[in-house]
Amino acid sequence: MPELRKDPVLGRWIIIAKERGKRPTDFIISEPDTRGGFCPLCPGNEKTTPAEVLGYGPEGRTPNTPNWQLRVVPNKYPALVIEGELQKEGEGLYDKMNGIGAHEVLVETPNHDETFTQLPPSRMVKIFHAFRDRILDLEKDPRFKYVMIFKNHGRAAGASLEHSHSQLVALPILPRMIVSELAGALSYYKYKERCVYCDIIRQELNERKRIVCENEHFLVITPYAPRSPFEMWLLPKRHTSRYTNQTQETFTALSEIFSETMRRLETCIPNVPYNLVLHSAPLRTEEMKHYHYHFEIMPKLTSIAGFEWGSGFYINPTPPEDAAKFLREAQI
Amino acid sequence: MPELRKDPVLGRWIIIAKERGKRPTDFIISEPDTRGGFCPLCPGNEKTTPAEVLGYGPEGRTPNTPNWQLRVVPNKYPALVIEGELQKEGEGLYDKMNGIGAHEVLVETPNHDETFTQLPPSRMVKIFHAFRDRILDLEKDPRFKYVMIFKNHGRAAGASLEHSHSQLVALPILPRMIVSELAGALSYYKYKERCVYCDIIRQELNERKRIVCENEHFLVITPYAPRSPFEMWLLPKRHTSRYTNQTQETFTALSEIFSETMRRLETCIPNVPYNLVLHSAPLRTEEMKHYHYHFEIMPKLTSIAGFEWGSGFYINPTPPEDAAKFLREAQI
Repeated sequence: MPELRKDPVLGRWIIIAKERGKRPTDFIISEPDTRGGFCPLCPGNEKTTPAEVLGYGPEGRTPNTPNWQLRVVPNKYPALVIEGELQKEGEGLYDKMNGIGAHEVLVETPNHDETFTQLPPSRMVKIFHAFRDRILDLEKDPRFKYVMIFKNHGRAAGASLEHSHSQLVALPILPRMIVSELAGALSYYKYKERCVYCDIIRQELNERKRIVCENEHFLVITPYAPRSPFEMWLLPKRHTSRYTNQTQETFTALSEIFSETMRRLETCIPNVPYNLVLHSAPLRTEEMKHYHYHFEIMPKLTSIAGFEWGSGFYINPTPPEDAAKFLREAQI
Repeated sequence: MPELRKDPVLGRWIIIAKERGKRPTDFIISEPDTRGGFCPLCPGNEKTTPAEVLGYGPEGRTPNTPNWQLRVVPNKYPALVIEGELQKEGEGLYDKMNGIGAHEVLVETPNHDETFTQLPPSRMVKIFHAFRDRILDLEKDPRFKYVMIFKNHGRAAGASLEHSHSQLVALPILPRMIVSELAGALSYYKYKERCVYCDIIRQELNERKRIVCENEHFLVITPYAPRSPFEMWLLPKRHTSRYTNQTQETFTALSEIFSETMRRLETCIPNVPYNLVLHSAPLRTEEMKHYHYHFEIMPKLTSIAGFEWGSGFYINPTPPEDAAKFLREAQI
């Protein structure tokens, strides 16, 4: 069973994934690329993954057989495990709990060589539906406080399988990043009685220096203080703290703007490795006036070195105003 | 002039290094390795770096000429610049300041192919002296609040030059990581009236499960909640918040334990890329009862992917108890 452990100074939690138990020699050679090898996410190989928890396909399709458009399966090597009661325990001055959670893989397309960016909006929208469906399902489990949804594209961004997929991790604690965001946003709200993200949207729409693209429902910007070159934030124009709080119309608009955003990025920097993360309110919370769900897209273009590790801040060689201009002017 | 910008939600600062101003095409091919090429840090090439701010060599040596054992020079491509007054400014709801600071490179050896780990303690000690000398000098500048000292070894850990070196960055703000450490340590102190790091040392010496090595003055452990496999913390056994607060005897002991630690790591994982960071109290602070200076050594063995970006916590496949055992038993 994996273990969650807390740093006694910083309060930072880490997951010790014992089952992956790596020895020194495991680190000497980096993992081989899977291109050309066996792919457990390809149609026909459904039996090599754990049984699917969600599958979209033609009506009447049998689960765990081919002929799907999208599937969600438990991760075969999960960072957290679904069975058991949450147990918190001390170890001298240290704190730990058992690694209860869910770790799922969302296979975005049956086609091995098709990337997220290549999907037309009409197919990409199914991924956004699946995010919602999985959050709503996992939310029923009272052990979980948050569902982290993310995508790693490219080996440099941490992808270990080539076949296009996203991941969902349901957590028994609120991740530190979300705690900090909620605290920062609440403190702004208390001072101004306005949502900080709504204020960002207003200022960006007014200044138009960091806009990448927009439609009726969504705005994509390069944030004012980006950690990495070409970092982008995708925000709903209408305030809401919960990703799941969407209509069919906004889902369609989300897919269209996402497709445009990713094509702009890919045109500027072909084959760019990136991480994509959904930031949404904690599970089972009422609509919050101070928090605003959004996506963050982080191209992996600079390395995290001693300075970033030690300081917690980042050196970025590309001003976001320049990045936004390149992205806006990309011929897509 | 570089710019410091603050994220309006998280309060996180980032440095926009405009002078490095990278265009999309700059990211397509990664930087070439310098092996075999021209090395600005090698003896004979002193004129290709900015004039040295510190040099150790035989008495009477002329600065910026060969025959040195160690030199410190300003970074030719600094993340922050030394000239100017600190100016803070708003930009709508955003905050920024000009990028005033110092960015120096400490060349650890005249021999291009000699690594930090290969240096005998009698030569390594000069590096630790130079850290102290530079901190004491930069501390005189009232614009600076902190000196971050770090080392990137290996391309995967962010090193762009192969010749063994460390870096010093003097900052006009306290880095977020140090702010969090100080806050966490203070809150523990208020509750327990003991230093959390001293308590960690006591528990580790008692349990002996995570000890890598020790001598009279220093203890090296794998921390209870490590971010990465084989992460190590090197702590002085006697409480002090300031790195500069050392005797000749502790400097000698520091070099001996550091040399042993690095050789243990290198034996377990040959050619391991790593980051090394000194965590010490802010400049011009009196001795603090709640803070304890230390070094953190982070092997770069796992990738920081969407999960880590989005959550701020880490998945580590190697329990620190296993890592400590491998390191302890390494035949050095």
